[in-house]
Amino acid sequence: MRGKFIVVEGLEGAGKSSVIGLIVQALKGAGKRVEQTREPGGTPMAEAIRECVKHDWDETVSEETELLLMYAARVQLLTNKILPSLDAGAWVVGDRHDLSSQAYQGGGRGVSGKTMSAISDIALKGFKPDLTLYLDVEPAVGLERARGRGELDRIEQAGLAFFERTRAKYLSLAKQDESIVVVSAMQPMEKVHQDVIAIINDYVTNTSSESSNMARNESQQGKG
Amino acid sequence: MRGKFIVVEGLEGAGKSSVIGLIVQALKGAGKRVEQTREPGGTPMAEAIRECVKHDWDETVSEETELLLMYAARVQLLTNKILPSLDAGAWVVGDRHDLSSQAYQGGGRGVSGKTMSAISDIALKGFKPDLTLYLDVEPAVGLERARGRGELDRIEQAGLAFFERTRAKYLSLAKQDESIVVVSAMQPMEKVHQDVIAIINDYVTNTSSESSNMARNESQQGKG
Repeated sequence: MRGKFIVVEGLEGAGKSSVIGLIVQALKGAGKRVEQTREPGGTPMAEAIRECVKHDWDETVSEETELLLMYAARVQLLTNKILPSLDAGAWVVGDRHDLSSQAYQGGGRGVSGKTMSAISDIALKGFKPDLTLYLDVEPAVGLERARGRGELDRIEQAGLAFFERTRAKYLSLAKQDESIVVVSAMQPMEKVHQDVIAIINDYVTNTSSESSNMARNESQQGKG
Repeated sequence: MRGKFIVVEGLEGAGKSSVIGLIVQALKGAGKRVEQTREPGGTPMAEAIRECVKHDWDETVSEETELLLMYAARVQLLTNKILPSLDAGAWVVGDRHDLSSQAYQGGGRGVSGKTMSAISDIALKGFKPDLTLYLDVEPAVGLERARGRGELDRIEQAGLAFFERTRAKYLSLAKQDESIVVVSAMQPMEKVHQDVIAIINDYVTNTSSESSNMARNESQQGKG
């Protein structure tokens, strides 16, 4: 049985890390083998690319450079970790994936939709996560939380208007895609965690009944 | 007066470095202000990307990752060094540019023409060098020379068939583009250098007479 790729998305300070911990625990509890990824990064080479893109350079970083680096890291992670793990039957829980580029570079930086789909086609060739949880938070609230954790990196310093555009893009993309579920991260953390657990449990149950239906159909076809 | 971008291209061991030195000297002799670039690299961030792409990783480097990194470095160099230098009137002499990706990734690695033009459009938006000198050498000869200089990097280890495909792509692209001049680098070095000097002197003379014609026309229009 091929595994599933579940991604957690959201602005800085949305609470991705604790939600990811929760999902990993729930999946293990349901008997799944679980691998974790983060983007950009997740393989030695992709982590080196992450360093390049996050570093506070003493030169202007062009929008296209940032975009190309994000996808370079992504295709490396996809090829060397995500796809082999799924093929081996593991469930992969990702801290960010393609939706981050769509939202941050497409929404925040204003890179055109045409450019975004051209590069996504080159890098991902149609691959997408099975389920994405987008943790929605107001930028001012999220950034305040992130600031409490220490210094913000180059991208996180981009200013409130940038994050407002990024959030708007996240929400509009979620509307167009049934595999993206929006969870309000402005609720009390306990309620956020309850929502996440409910979504994951539902997903695991539906996936198991789908696969047992498939198995039943296959065995009936075998008899027919 | 906007400067010109002259690029030297060729396989490993074609003799790019000494030819670049010669061109820089000739341009300075003709009274030009000259900047030099190398690709991938040429700005602090682009040099960090060069490290990523040249490093001998303990994981498979996907074709798309390599391609995206090459263009990330290129757009960074173009935006922060090549274009500002040309605008300021300097002549820029480049050790490799886009033609290297077309030849190595498109020819050598076999990345499709559709992918190559999509990514080139995103990164370069139609920008191209004014003049390219392609130093043509048989791969076996070039690699033997390069080996004499020390260790070969990850890309240089790709094997003879890879470089045969790369060379074939260089030659076929040169046939389709008048701004690419082929110089046989299998001649004695003295003859190679004579050919290069002749090409550069011609180019500088033609460029100056074009610009003085333009100046004359403008001053006559002013009188009319």
